[in-house]
Amino acid sequence: MGQDGSPAHKRPSGSGGGLPTTTVTNGGGRGGRGGLLPRGRQMQKTFNNIKITILCGFVTILVLRGTIGVGNLGSSSADAVNQNIIEETNRILAEIRSDSDPTDLDEPQEGDMNPNATYVLGPKITDWDSQRKVWLNQNPEFPSTVNGKARILLLTGSPPKPCDNPIGDHYLLKSVKNKIDYCRLHGIEIVYNMAHLDKELAGYWAKLPMIRRLMLSHPEVEWIWWMDSDALFTDILFQIPLARYEKHNLVIHGYPDLLFDQKSWIALNTGSFLLRNCQWSLDLLDAWAPMGPKGPIRDEAGKVLTAYLKGRPAFEADDQSALIYLLLSQKDTWMEKVFVENQYYLHGFWEGLVDRYEEMIEKYHPGLGDERWPFVTHFVGCKPCGSYADYAVERCLKSMERAFNFADNQVLKLYGFGHRGLLSPKIKRIRNETVTPLEFVDKFDIRRTQVETKPQN
Amino acid sequence: MGQDGSPAHKRPSGSGGGLPTTTVTNGGGRGGRGGLLPRGRQMQKTFNNIKITILCGFVTILVLRGTIGVGNLGSSSADAVNQNIIEETNRILAEIRSDSDPTDLDEPQEGDMNPNATYVLGPKITDWDSQRKVWLNQNPEFPSTVNGKARILLLTGSPPKPCDNPIGDHYLLKSVKNKIDYCRLHGIEIVYNMAHLDKELAGYWAKLPMIRRLMLSHPEVEWIWWMDSDALFTDILFQIPLARYEKHNLVIHGYPDLLFDQKSWIALNTGSFLLRNCQWSLDLLDAWAPMGPKGPIRDEAGKVLTAYLKGRPAFEADDQSALIYLLLSQKDTWMEKVFVENQYYLHGFWEGLVDRYEEMIEKYHPGLGDERWPFVTHFVGCKPCGSYADYAVERCLKSMERAFNFADNQVLKLYGFGHRGLLSPKIKRIRNETVTPLEFVDKFDIRRTQVETKPQN
Repeated sequence: MGQDGSPAHKRPSGSGGGLPTTTVTNGGGRGGRGGLLPRGRQMQKTFNNIKITILCGFVTILVLRGTIGVGNLGSSSADAVNQNIIEETNRILAEIRSDSDPTDLDEPQEGDMNPNATYVLGPKITDWDSQRKVWLNQNPEFPSTVNGKARILLLTGSPPKPCDNPIGDHYLLKSVKNKIDYCRLHGIEIVYNMAHLDKELAGYWAKLPMIRRLMLSHPEVEWIWWMDSDALFTDILFQIPLARYEKHNLVIHGYPDLLFDQKSWIALNTGSFLLRNCQWSLDLLDAWAPMGPKGPIRDEAGKVLTAYLKGRPAFEADDQSALIYLLLSQKDTWMEKVFVENQYYLHGFWEGLVDRYEEMIEKYHPGLGDERWPFVTHFVGCKPCGSYADYAVERCLKSMERAFNFADNQVLKLYGFGHRGLLSPKIKRIRNETVTPLEFVDKFDIRRTQVETKPQN
Repeated sequence: MGQDGSPAHKRPSGSGGGLPTTTVTNGGGRGGRGGLLPRGRQMQKTFNNIKITILCGFVTILVLRGTIGVGNLGSSSADAVNQNIIEETNRILAEIRSDSDPTDLDEPQEGDMNPNATYVLGPKITDWDSQRKVWLNQNPEFPSTVNGKARILLLTGSPPKPCDNPIGDHYLLKSVKNKIDYCRLHGIEIVYNMAHLDKELAGYWAKLPMIRRLMLSHPEVEWIWWMDSDALFTDILFQIPLARYEKHNLVIHGYPDLLFDQKSWIALNTGSFLLRNCQWSLDLLDAWAPMGPKGPIRDEAGKVLTAYLKGRPAFEADDQSALIYLLLSQKDTWMEKVFVENQYYLHGFWEGLVDRYEEMIEKYHPGLGDERWPFVTHFVGCKPCGSYADYAVERCLKSMERAFNFADNQVLKLYGFGHRGLLSPKIKRIRNETVTPLEFVDKFDIRRTQVETKPQN
């Protein structure tokens, strides 16, 4: 992460409410250890290191090729070509990671905060509801409802640079494919964010400025749905029961008793929540953000949160703890408009779910969304994109592969295919092709079952 | 790719019309060199190799961490944690790549072809137009037009397993983010395919069965738009001029003179084309597919194509050459319904475009789609996901980074941000926040300019 120095385990690619271990180092090691050396020796060191890197990378790939059938070029000339590729890849990879961008200054940018003032997300907006209402009236071609359903925009994202752990990018890809499938089938738009809008709010805090930005740029959107990159839709049929939330502005998975009785730091999970596009939400974001700025502010706030919340380890302030703290300390101000949902898994903790998929397939069916067929399986603490993780990486990767294929089977069913096993990327035919394929569309198209459940227009 | 043995440079992740070099080995090295050893020694070899892999992988990461500031955990205990992660990652990575799936049989699956018969994509359908018409009449809630525009489904995809070249997955991620942005802004649905529907048609032929499958499963879709994973939308404003194609069923970028006068194997490019959902298209796919089956059929067909087409190197049959051959040898049957487009870059060869982005920004504006502001920039021959490439990998990666950011700037403009440079993943503010953000929406929302250009309904 070079200059922005935010530790890998504090990126959006991890869960909003990860369970940090004691190996956490608060914002330490900016620019890596090399950053402490004088420029000249730094360069020297860099080049020596890159040489070693290239060698090791090359050997690694060669061995992998021989071992797992990756390679197809057997000749020595091909090996030379391959070596060439490895060397160049390592170089460009290093360059991209190292932020060596001439136009990339460390001087404060426009809009950066003044460290003495309380942090704000932007100029205070007080009349958003009326501004938005006027705009909607003036722009009937952008209604806030689609087919009678409130317009939802799903926001997810990952760091702008390659993962420290290379396989992380592969699971980010599978995660977005899973979201594309769910959102296509349910008429939900997606914004995939790879930018840090505000360097002060790097890591898991980055969602706040982006949510605000989307509300102000997409007045036609009624709900912004934040979802972590390590959360997968595992019930492709399930639909958010929006009617239930008509009188609420924030919908988040959690347990009232854990929240109010125990003040637990995991009473709510910010890995997947819906926020209505309205003035109340802008106010909530303004009240939520001040603990976010990187460095001393975030570190000090972390101590307050650890002292106040049950079970919270000592580490810098995270967005989840900050929200729980806000809702507890200003209950009367906010809770009336907060819907704490636990009738279905808007967020579902992966442990205890991923090992039960076979049982679910045997006993139940998609569309339930709860423990019988979880709507969302969230890999809290796995952080496949980071160089740090709470859980055994092997267990995480296997479980994510299982969750992806469990969901993908529900999508492939329409096309007549399914995975050969929950751990297999390969698929098999589950029914024969016919000359009257539309019978299967009528039978298996998920959107038709939805349409049938709602009044025809 | 283990058992399916399709060489890396023949995957969909590469361009439909890549320019292979003489290092191509026709379908050789199935399952890697290890595949020739007896099972016992194979296992032995595998474990030894994995040990070496782990060591090298570990050293590589350690060095990388020290060099490019990836690492944030400085302590030796953290190093131990890190080593643990690397080891486990390499193990699971190897496992996922190695197809070692108990349920994964090599016995012929349902629907596999009979090697003696001519290959077919599925049971012959002859009355698709009437079947589809009846269905559309019976399902008014799924119209084939949206806001007066024909419904388009964009199909893209990548191999089911991690890339041989780890950074490849990062560029697949950026590529799908780019497609999500364009398709959200233009009301186009996306299907991201990670499955090989038909093991006979692996590699660049995989698009054929998937396109057919989507036509039969999505009767409400009027156009299926195939786009390679290494092609990026670089003009986010440009819209496909569908009205121009009312009398055509296949829209593909190319040059009639190269096609008919020179019989050039690059006269058309199958990296980005539109196919209408109709009987004609099903017939075309049936006529197009027979050269595709892996092994002797594809190899022999390659010789025919190389003999027939100008400039084609000797290698197995590819989908692009096969289409050109079909349209040339059966011109009267097909060409009447084929629109060879070159008024804008439905496919734009990256060389000669990526180095001119600064000039374009200076002189022109998005929405033109041609050489002044290319609609699509296609990284033919780069194959970032494969272990093989025609071009210097460094040049490819830098160029793809530039193309992605060039396009991303057009998306970020609405939000008031832009990249610090075409090679920088970091962004900067391009205008100050205001308390009346909707003025910017009216000014910068791409969709509004579209709406204004078409009659209000």
